[in-house]
Amino acid sequence: MQDALPRFGYRLIAEDGAARVGEIATPHGPVRTPAFMPVGTAGTVKALYPEQVKAAGADIVLANTYHLMLRPGPERIAKLGGLHAFMRWDGPILTDSGGFQVMSLAKLRQVSEAGVRFQSHLDGSPHMLSPERAIEIQCLLGADIQMQLDECLELPAERGEAQRAMELSLRWAERARAAFARLANPGQALFAIVQGATDPELRQRSAQALIAMDFPGYAIGGLAVGEGHDVMLRTLEGVVPLLPADKPRYLMGVGAPLDLIESVARGIDMFDCVLPTRNGRHGLAYTWNGRLNLKNACYADDRAPLDAQSMCPAARDYSRAYLHHLVKSGEYLGSMLLSWANTAFYQELMGGMRAAIAEGRFADFAEATKRRLAAAQET
Amino acid sequence: MQDALPRFGYRLIAEDGAARVGEIATPHGPVRTPAFMPVGTAGTVKALYPEQVKAAGADIVLANTYHLMLRPGPERIAKLGGLHAFMRWDGPILTDSGGFQVMSLAKLRQVSEAGVRFQSHLDGSPHMLSPERAIEIQCLLGADIQMQLDECLELPAERGEAQRAMELSLRWAERARAAFARLANPGQALFAIVQGATDPELRQRSAQALIAMDFPGYAIGGLAVGEGHDVMLRTLEGVVPLLPADKPRYLMGVGAPLDLIESVARGIDMFDCVLPTRNGRHGLAYTWNGRLNLKNACYADDRAPLDAQSMCPAARDYSRAYLHHLVKSGEYLGSMLLSWANTAFYQELMGGMRAAIAEGRFADFAEATKRRLAAAQET
Repeated sequence: MQDALPRFGYRLIAEDGAARVGEIATPHGPVRTPAFMPVGTAGTVKALYPEQVKAAGADIVLANTYHLMLRPGPERIAKLGGLHAFMRWDGPILTDSGGFQVMSLAKLRQVSEAGVRFQSHLDGSPHMLSPERAIEIQCLLGADIQMQLDECLELPAERGEAQRAMELSLRWAERARAAFARLANPGQALFAIVQGATDPELRQRSAQALIAMDFPGYAIGGLAVGEGHDVMLRTLEGVVPLLPADKPRYLMGVGAPLDLIESVARGIDMFDCVLPTRNGRHGLAYTWNGRLNLKNACYADDRAPLDAQSMCPAARDYSRAYLHHLVKSGEYLGSMLLSWANTAFYQELMGGMRAAIAEGRFADFAEATKRRLAAAQET
Repeated sequence: MQDALPRFGYRLIAEDGAARVGEIATPHGPVRTPAFMPVGTAGTVKALYPEQVKAAGADIVLANTYHLMLRPGPERIAKLGGLHAFMRWDGPILTDSGGFQVMSLAKLRQVSEAGVRFQSHLDGSPHMLSPERAIEIQCLLGADIQMQLDECLELPAERGEAQRAMELSLRWAERARAAFARLANPGQALFAIVQGATDPELRQRSAQALIAMDFPGYAIGGLAVGEGHDVMLRTLEGVVPLLPADKPRYLMGVGAPLDLIESVARGIDMFDCVLPTRNGRHGLAYTWNGRLNLKNACYADDRAPLDAQSMCPAARDYSRAYLHHLVKSGEYLGSMLLSWANTAFYQELMGGMRAAIAEGRFADFAEATKRRLAAAQET
C-alpha cells in the first residue's frame, strides 16, 4: 500500500552474500542501510545534543510511543509542531508502537482483543493502547516510519501462548493498516512485526500472513529478550529468507556489536538498541579494540584516549584517565562523553559494514572486526 | 612578591564610580575583569563540555582543591601533565585552598595551628590540610591563581571566634606565602583572603595585615554564607576601599546576578559560584528577563526559547516546552541545556557590565538590568 506513496521507498544497492546495502527514502531524508538507529526514548538520545547524533553519522533516530504518550502527550507534541520540531531532529524518525514498553514497564496490564489496558509507571494513571490508538499517537508525533502494535512475550514462552500472541498480533496488524490508511500523511510508512517467539513454524506463518498484507517494511520482534545470541541467529536464518528483497528488514532492540555484524550477515537492514547510550552512562566504552570498562582502576593513569583514530572528539580528545575520574566521580561529563563516543562507534561500525558490502568484502570485514572486538584490553 | 614575576599582572583599564574594568595576565592567557569563573569542582564544569565554557565567554574556571586532593589526587594529576591537560582547559585556572569545602563537606574536622585534620566525605579516609600542603597541591595541579588556606566560619559567629579564626588565617597566609615562594612556577600567583566575618574592625585588621604582606591579589572570604545580601554589601563597603587599586579583588562564592551587579558597583573584579550550573541542573534558567523555573506547568506548551536574542544555542534554539519536558523527565539534556544557557547568561552579564563601565554608563546599566531581572515571568 505505501509503495504507491511518493516519499517512502527502499532501494537495494548492493548485495554480498545475504548482507545488503540499500537506502530508504523518507519524508525527512534518506537512511543508509544497514542502519543503526540511536534510541531517543523520551524525545532525546540520552546525554547527547541532536547535533552530535547527526555528526556521529546517524541518519535516523527512534523514539518511544509509550514514553511520549504518557509524557508530554502526543496531542501536546502535535500542537507544538510534531516530534521533529519538538526534539530538534530534522532527519527521519521511527517510532515503536508502545507494545514492548507496555509489557516491560507498565503496571497492571491486561491484554484483550481490543488492545492493552495498563497503568502508567509514572503516576499509575489508566491508559488503553489499541492498534488504532498506537497509530493515532504515531501520526500525532509525525513519525516517518511507524510500527504496528504487537503483543510481546517474555521468552521462553509456551508454544500455545506464542501462537496465540502471534495470531493476535496479525489481527492487530490488519487493524493498524486500516487506521494508518485513514490517518497517516503521504510518504509515511507503517512496518509490520513478525512474531512467533523462537518457533520456526510460527515465525513462518507470521511472516507469510504479513507479507500477504503487503507492508512497506518488516520488523522482526520478540528477539533479544533473553533467548541468547545463537538462538536469535537461528531464528533470523529461518525468517529473513522469507521476507521480500525489495523491503527493508528491521531487527528490533538489537544489539551488541557482534549481534549487529551477525545479523547484517543474515540480511538485516535496520537496528535499534539502548546499549551504546545506556552502557555509556554506566562507564562502558565500545571501541574497535573491544569494550572497555572505564571504572576499572587500570585506566586511572592511562593517558591514551579511547581511540586516537576516531573522528569523534569524545573518543579522540579525552584521556582514559580523565574518563575514569569522571565515571568514578559520577560526573555528567562522563556519561556525556561515553554516550557520544559509543554512538559514534556504532555509526562507524555500520559505515564500515556498508562499505565492505558495497565492495564485496563483507565476510573478511566481519571476521577481522570480530577478532578485533574480542581483543582483551583490560588487565 | 609575585609582582616581579613575568607572567602574572593586573592592569586597570577604566573606572566608573567604584566599578572597574581591567585585565589579569596569567601564564595561560588573559582574564577580562570583572570576571565570573564557572566552577569546575572535580575538574569539570558540571554538564558542560570545555569548549562550551570557553565559547560562552569564560576566560577562567575555578577548580576545588578539596575534591581533587581526594579524587583523583594531585600527584596523579601532576603525573598526567597537570590539571589544564587533564580537564582539557587551556585557559587560566584558579584553585581554592580547600578550606571552605573542608568546613562544609568533610567529617570530623579538627582545626589546629598546624592546619585542618579531617576525614574524606567519600570514604572516611584521614587527611591533613596545612597551609603548606594546600599550596603544594595547587602547584601539583598547576593552578595559575592559587588561594591561601583560611579558616572559614559559619555565620553568625561570636566576635571572639571570628577574631581567632581571622588571626589564624593571617598566620596561615604568611606560611602559604613562604611555601608558594618555594614551590610555585614563574607567573603563577597566590591570593590572600580577607576574613573577619561581618565585623568591620576585624575585616579592616585582616585587610591591613595582608596588604602589608603584599600579595598580587586579594579575596574576600567568609561571605555569601547566610548573612544576607545587605549585610554582604555593607561588609564589602567597609573592606574594598582598603584594598590596593592595582591588585584584583575576588569575592569568593558569589553569587546571584543581583549580587554580581551590586558587588561590581562596589569595586569587585572576580567571582565564582555554583548557582548557574547547580540551578541549571534543578530546572532554573537565568535570563535577561529574570529567573524561570522550567518545572512550572506554564511552560508545558510554550514554544518560545529562553531567549531568542541569545548567542547561546541552548537559550536560543530549544523551546521552553521541550526544556520543561526534559526537566520533568529527569533527562540529561535538560541539565545540559540549562547549565549551558545559565553559564552563557552569566558571561553575557559580565560582558555587559564590562562594556558599561568602559563607556561610563555603569549606573544606568545596573539600574536597567536590575529592573529587567526583577520582571515577573511566571504566572
